[in-house]
Amino acid sequence: MRPLSVDSLNPSIAKVEYAVRGELAIKAEEYREQLRQLDHGLPFDKVISSNIGNPQQKGLDQPPITFSRHVAALTEWPALADLAPNAFPKDVIARAKELGEEIGSIGAYTHSQGVPFIRKNVAKFIEERDGYPSNPAHIFLTGGASAGVSLLISMLINNPKAGVLIPIPQYPLYTATLAQHNGVPIPYHLEESDGWSTSIETIEEAIERAHRDGVVPKALVIINPGNPTGALLAEETQVKLLELCEKHSLVLLADEVYQVNLHRPDDHPFTSFKKIVAQQQSPVPLVSFHSISKGVTGECGRRGGYFECTNISDDILALIYKMVSVGLCPPVSGQIGVDTMVRPPQPGDESYELWKKETDVIHEALRHRTMTMSGRLNSLPGVSCVNSPGALYLYPQIQLSDKAQEAARKAGKQPDAFYALALLDATGICVVPGSGFGQKKGEWHYRLTCLCPGVDEYVNKLEKFHEEFIEKYGV
Amino acid sequence: MRPLSVDSLNPSIAKVEYAVRGELAIKAEEYREQLRQLDHGLPFDKVISSNIGNPQQKGLDQPPITFSRHVAALTEWPALADLAPNAFPKDVIARAKELGEEIGSIGAYTHSQGVPFIRKNVAKFIEERDGYPSNPAHIFLTGGASAGVSLLISMLINNPKAGVLIPIPQYPLYTATLAQHNGVPIPYHLEESDGWSTSIETIEEAIERAHRDGVVPKALVIINPGNPTGALLAEETQVKLLELCEKHSLVLLADEVYQVNLHRPDDHPFTSFKKIVAQQQSPVPLVSFHSISKGVTGECGRRGGYFECTNISDDILALIYKMVSVGLCPPVSGQIGVDTMVRPPQPGDESYELWKKETDVIHEALRHRTMTMSGRLNSLPGVSCVNSPGALYLYPQIQLSDKAQEAARKAGKQPDAFYALALLDATGICVVPGSGFGQKKGEWHYRLTCLCPGVDEYVNKLEKFHEEFIEKYGV
Repeated sequence: MRPLSVDSLNPSIAKVEYAVRGELAIKAEEYREQLRQLDHGLPFDKVISSNIGNPQQKGLDQPPITFSRHVAALTEWPALADLAPNAFPKDVIARAKELGEEIGSIGAYTHSQGVPFIRKNVAKFIEERDGYPSNPAHIFLTGGASAGVSLLISMLINNPKAGVLIPIPQYPLYTATLAQHNGVPIPYHLEESDGWSTSIETIEEAIERAHRDGVVPKALVIINPGNPTGALLAEETQVKLLELCEKHSLVLLADEVYQVNLHRPDDHPFTSFKKIVAQQQSPVPLVSFHSISKGVTGECGRRGGYFECTNISDDILALIYKMVSVGLCPPVSGQIGVDTMVRPPQPGDESYELWKKETDVIHEALRHRTMTMSGRLNSLPGVSCVNSPGALYLYPQIQLSDKAQEAARKAGKQPDAFYALALLDATGICVVPGSGFGQKKGEWHYRLTCLCPGVDEYVNKLEKFHEEFIEKYGV
Repeated sequence: MRPLSVDSLNPSIAKVEYAVRGELAIKAEEYREQLRQLDHGLPFDKVISSNIGNPQQKGLDQPPITFSRHVAALTEWPALADLAPNAFPKDVIARAKELGEEIGSIGAYTHSQGVPFIRKNVAKFIEERDGYPSNPAHIFLTGGASAGVSLLISMLINNPKAGVLIPIPQYPLYTATLAQHNGVPIPYHLEESDGWSTSIETIEEAIERAHRDGVVPKALVIINPGNPTGALLAEETQVKLLELCEKHSLVLLADEVYQVNLHRPDDHPFTSFKKIVAQQQSPVPLVSFHSISKGVTGECGRRGGYFECTNISDDILALIYKMVSVGLCPPVSGQIGVDTMVRPPQPGDESYELWKKETDVIHEALRHRTMTMSGRLNSLPGVSCVNSPGALYLYPQIQLSDKAQEAARKAGKQPDAFYALALLDATGICVVPGSGFGQKKGEWHYRLTCLCPGVDEYVNKLEKFHEEFIEKYGV
């Protein structure tokens, strides 16, 4: 028989790229294995995974919120409430009991759209956040935000000339999903010199360019707070973006998974697109995504999240339901994680004090690290870095000399990938080259997370490497 | 702006059908809501969901295996080992500690292919089951078997004339996924009169027919034990199926999620395709799927499973890795469920006795119910039912009179859907019409699970309904 070959597979698959877990991450894993040997011969003693927003991973070790795990453990094995009555706060016991009554065993498939009771709680959370009604029937619980984004894009792409407007830099889930489903990414650049702001004109130009190419824009992706940029949209901009969507009949896909990761909320607050749509009584179809993987919960491994549909007709909601039903249901452990996120302990609850302390520590650590890192990176020759007001990342721009670019070419790498590989080889720090997120021609960046404890020692390594790199290759 | 309309969406989405959670299941959920009212006006007091293999759901209430939940609760909150030292058997504490050391926090993303340690344990399980080597690098942990099947089919369909051979009756995941990814289902019928056996000739005919239609068969789907049929393949047939795959350059997709649901293992044992491939030194590319949702674990809600690739080249494995990395990782709670399934307690472990008792009870209950139900269904006029030796289902054939067919036509329903709706309306029992799984023209079936406790009372309801139905419509 002919062996199965890559050439015989779906050609769309070959086009998919996802740098966050690409070459750098794979090499970092190999180093991690190598470090298990006593005589590993590497110039570092640990790998630091700054490539992905994964707060609880080994080496970063952001502790989980105790309340979340209390509820999770008790829903896994409800008998513990009697077997270990002193191990759990009273509000946790009540919460787990309530969830148990609604869900039954967490080992059963739930409603494909997610447990109705949890969707009601999500709707209440949205109503309290925004001050406008939310309908549980329009909410779908998902296995992380990615699953929802992928589903929506697969539904919107109705032919190979259908496109989706994507910010550059972007989170590469969007281009990966578009490649998989044969849609056209329509890039629009964010303004680095203006703190990675979003420009209506730039998007209008991208739409015109698409039309000239025979591409039909179907949707606009906005990531707010930005990934990898950390930028936050002002409400005036959000209003204009809605007007733009209305003018061009675009569905708005609002990736809002970093909505509570705000480092300077007084100057840079978060406003949901749902609120603006309601306020403006806008007819724009909106799908808003949220997740338990980021924020202060950081429960990436549970795979939990939701999306809320606004201005989406019942027949389309029925289609979405049909599609999610083929996958049966989102992970129940993730659904319970969503419930915990949208219903944290309240003042007076036995769990409240600890919850407050733990979440304050996480917020403060992120704020402190982001500021320290951006400040020190900015003082390096050939590096400039927007002091990100939100999310978990920095996206510094690096100047790379002709000599460095030539060395990269010889190594068969993009210059920023060459820099990032050299950083990994020298320090064990794994970042993602800007080519994975997109950047203007001739510019080079990398994304790194602000999750590593011991920020001073960490930045020392980045600095030392950078100085050695420019000593070798010039600025 | 134009409102977003169904017509503007991906046309493949409209073609997707998934009857297991379709019209009947939606109506059953509505009845369940209605029953919450005191004055509900329905002729039954509970809805029995026999439409889906979901053992732990409310009303069926198959208890989870204690060992699984012990491990799950302790990995959620490891401090419980100290806070409630007497609540957990020693082997559970050791297991949770071992998993914690390997995984770190279960709130972190894992390796996209699944935790390496758990994949090693899966490989050991396969080696012990089959007596042949298994490579952890060729194993992918998934969010249930469905996620893996969907991924593989999306990769194999390389153009709209690519087809996949699907047994009829089938589990509708296959046709749903093919519709979504624009592939062509190539049906081959199983032999009901021979206990739903698989015929090589029938498959050869289907391949010839496909070629005549310009369709290129890429893969053969085998569900063993069968769903909805419960049939088990004999090893001689498996050898011939491999020869057929080799002859026609087909990838074999072996859905083996019911491999431990065996009611008469002496006459109808399970042999994995992996074993036959190894034994025969066959070059056929094989992907074997397994799941924690079925078997005795029945942990559907965790979303856990795996697939093992055999005779699949490294470059294709790298492509699969890339695709799963876009979704980041399978739910960790499901991954831990896989570990628990492939490493049950052993004689001498503190958990062993209870685990043995619990799993024996589940096996015996399924065996007893399947036999009772098939026996009593067979004695009804116009009903014939293969006494299924495996899986969780029966798939009785029902004769429907001209009068019944005419009434169905007037109601705008398929005759078997008409029958199933009438059954739901009269008894609260929700089954899935055969049209959701496929059947020969002019034949009618339905699928029901063998999971309902109180089997005698349950079958009483089926009998009473059937008698009233044929009284009204004749045989």
